[in-house]
Amino acid sequence: MDEYIKIKVMTLREFTVNVFNRFGVPVEDAQVAADVLITADQRGIESHGVQRFKRYTDGLKTGLMKPVTEIKILKETPNTLLVSAGDGMGMVAGYRTMKLVIDKALRHNVAFAAVRDSNHYGIAGYYSMMALDYGLIGISLTNTAPLVVPTFGKDAVVGTNPISIAVPAGKGRPFVLDMATSTVTRGEVEVHAREGKRMPLTWATDELGNAADDASRVLANWLAKKGGGLLPLGGEGEDGGGHKGYGLALAVDIFSGVLSGGVFGLNTYPKKDVPAKVCHFFGAIKIDAFIELDLFKKMMDEYIVMLKNSPKAAGHDRIFIHGEKEFELHEQQKDEVGIYYKVVEELRQVGQEVGIAAPF
Amino acid sequence: MDEYIKIKVMTLREFTVNVFNRFGVPVEDAQVAADVLITADQRGIESHGVQRFKRYTDGLKTGLMKPVTEIKILKETPNTLLVSAGDGMGMVAGYRTMKLVIDKALRHNVAFAAVRDSNHYGIAGYYSMMALDYGLIGISLTNTAPLVVPTFGKDAVVGTNPISIAVPAGKGRPFVLDMATSTVTRGEVEVHAREGKRMPLTWATDELGNAADDASRVLANWLAKKGGGLLPLGGEGEDGGGHKGYGLALAVDIFSGVLSGGVFGLNTYPKKDVPAKVCHFFGAIKIDAFIELDLFKKMMDEYIVMLKNSPKAAGHDRIFIHGEKEFELHEQQKDEVGIYYKVVEELRQVGQEVGIAAPF
Repeated sequence: MDEYIKIKVMTLREFTVNVFNRFGVPVEDAQVAADVLITADQRGIESHGVQRFKRYTDGLKTGLMKPVTEIKILKETPNTLLVSAGDGMGMVAGYRTMKLVIDKALRHNVAFAAVRDSNHYGIAGYYSMMALDYGLIGISLTNTAPLVVPTFGKDAVVGTNPISIAVPAGKGRPFVLDMATSTVTRGEVEVHAREGKRMPLTWATDELGNAADDASRVLANWLAKKGGGLLPLGGEGEDGGGHKGYGLALAVDIFSGVLSGGVFGLNTYPKKDVPAKVCHFFGAIKIDAFIELDLFKKMMDEYIVMLKNSPKAAGHDRIFIHGEKEFELHEQQKDEVGIYYKVVEELRQVGQEVGIAAPF
Repeated sequence: MDEYIKIKVMTLREFTVNVFNRFGVPVEDAQVAADVLITADQRGIESHGVQRFKRYTDGLKTGLMKPVTEIKILKETPNTLLVSAGDGMGMVAGYRTMKLVIDKALRHNVAFAAVRDSNHYGIAGYYSMMALDYGLIGISLTNTAPLVVPTFGKDAVVGTNPISIAVPAGKGRPFVLDMATSTVTRGEVEVHAREGKRMPLTWATDELGNAADDASRVLANWLAKKGGGLLPLGGEGEDGGGHKGYGLALAVDIFSGVLSGGVFGLNTYPKKDVPAKVCHFFGAIKIDAFIELDLFKKMMDEYIVMLKNSPKAAGHDRIFIHGEKEFELHEQQKDEVGIYYKVVEELRQVGQEVGIAAPF
């Protein structure tokens, strides 16, 4: 996976849109789905980029993910929405629902939507960031396949359940928190296994529930369903605050899976041959319902400068604000994006299946 | 601090209310403040209980904390509030504002309030839990004195900025997350220093910004203003996810300090002789704007059972839900609460200052 090639963003976009379309996804929806994936690659979050393209097309092929996403509004008030995504595409459900949430927040200051019957929606930050241009704070949460052990538990019960909060700034870049509530995601364990590197002990457990540093063994346990899982942010037990990461994961699932009347914990991705039933939660808060947007942005800038100018720890010369690294990568990869060779090969094969030659 | 005595809750309540009142706090407000403190002790969160009583009365004595809390509503919409607490008592500001938020959420589904010019408000969970009886999810955030280093930073810039989310369940106890966004709070470092125990390396840094296990040295550095601080949840650097804890701390401060137009980061508790200017953020979300409350409670019960029945890690026989330990302690300490002898002595002295003899 270490070798990558540069592909023009326009070319990659056209290809993925066309392939999604051949799988039955309407062009407009395919554009949304492609944009979510490519934005992840541009921001350097490859694990959620076109690396996942085949998983989506596989879902479309088996019919477990519907190509036409029919959003059904099950309940609505001026500032809340309950939505079923009808087993459609998570990115399309996310995009459309967040649009509705933004509209409601602009008119009613604060709005939330809980979404059920959806699928993997890519990076959580895509949807929270949609709020930025409107002077809103954006919030995006989702449950995921159960991969994380509860504190003192042996087996995975909760998801890596990410939290994203996007906040506009003035001259500074927006604050964009986009974090799994586990210490790391499965992908990072896989990279360590491939490279034969030991993991920090705060990442995952062995089959007995003890913190483990052998990534290959941990992965083998998961594949053999022998137990173990990722550790919540904070690690094993309570000494390092692992119960806090576990609590945040539960909170995300309560807002997503429970408040939507959907599925939660072990019930997401229940079996190989049934829809994943992923649930999301979106929110938007109008800043000038509290203080004037300009003042808010000025204060955000001040805070960013305060943090960046504060003294650095030994061996470090820079303090980061959340989202900053990703915005810089995005700027660097505005027109061309680095894609691992192995992923490019996979994209080619998916294209061939539906008679579309990859132009890269 | 290891020796404690049992005091009748009614006796302790009467005493603290009377003393607060002698310091100029109206009886009704004194009852609120006393209840927040004693509830913390009953729930086993001694660090935020009457152990802090003297700090509040000291604040009242110097005039930095006003005994009469005059809530001023600076901006209001049907579902949002911007409040100045006028340098009054944090607990009174929190209680009154959360009441208003609950009223608004009952009428408009979702409501938020940002509060500025306040003081230390005790346990964050007190206010989130106020929502539980109304079929609401409660949220409570606050900024605090800067004690936590940003990732790659040498000195403390952000607070321990806690997050509390309270969610009703049915037969099961409510889910009550109430967590500092640092790995631990200052109190836990102090306990380790006193007992001469080494700290886990995810708790705090030395004066150069390196993870440190010597609690006495870390504390000495803080007192001498030599640098160092608590580590964000996840620990030093990014390997254990410390940047996530740091991001959560920032998010809390953005909602509290920035959105209220108040103070943030280094500007909270700016100097010894000026008001602390602490900021809070409160929220409430009406569950039946999404799904019926009874269904929601049934699903919460199912989730709790799913977690508790899942296999345990080696050496453990119980998985906890957040708030559970505290509810159990509260039940045990319903009528009588254990208070450290040293704290009892301090309470007696404070009472003597205003001519009230402690009846314990």
